[in-house]
Amino acid sequence: MVLDRIGDKWSVLVLLSLAHGPMRFTALRGRIGGVTPKVLTQTLRAMETDGLVTREVFAEVPPRVEYELTALGRSLHEPISAVATWAENHVTEILTHRTQST
Amino acid sequence: MVLDRIGDKWSVLVLLSLAHGPMRFTALRGRIGGVTPKVLTQTLRAMETDGLVTREVFAEVPPRVEYELTALGRSLHEPISAVATWAENHVTEILTHRTQST
Repeated sequence: MVLDRIGDKWSVLVLLSLAHGPMRFTALRGRIGGVTPKVLTQTLRAMETDGLVTREVFAEVPPRVEYELTALGRSLHEPISAVATWAENHVTEILTHRTQST
Repeated sequence: MVLDRIGDKWSVLVLLSLAHGPMRFTALRGRIGGVTPKVLTQTLRAMETDGLVTREVFAEVPPRVEYELTALGRSLHEPISAVATWAENHVTEILTHRTQST
């Protein structure tokens, strides 16, 4: 389902990270933090499959690979960043609720 | 993490379903469709823990239980529905990409 893929935490972080332009895998991994190479690769492949991200290989030595948002991916940036901003603004409130519930 | 919980498909569907007012479990389940009682219960409990939903038990025979968005839950409705609208508008495009990738 589309909502599952879009709402996935790592997909959201990739989308936000690529918003300012193309990035290489290592830079993306550094920006996101806490993601294993395996999970980041899976996330990028899934986003490529959905048409949100392109993967471009440059014929250099050593080869350079860059990931970039497609027009579709860029169109998702605004609604997703609104949710991410909401999460940032309310994380303390939510964590307080979680603590009170235990 | 907050993003995971918020982005969960069932949480999104509960949030959208409760946007117009409180609902009973059975009505909510009917509105969402395709969700097992177990998963819906887990989703509602998690949203209760996060302070997004309240569960109210009315002392009737048989007892009536209603779920309702809190102010926090209502504040999440606008950004989440923007993402849901995006998903509705682009589902065909995404599914086309998926088909081309296989």
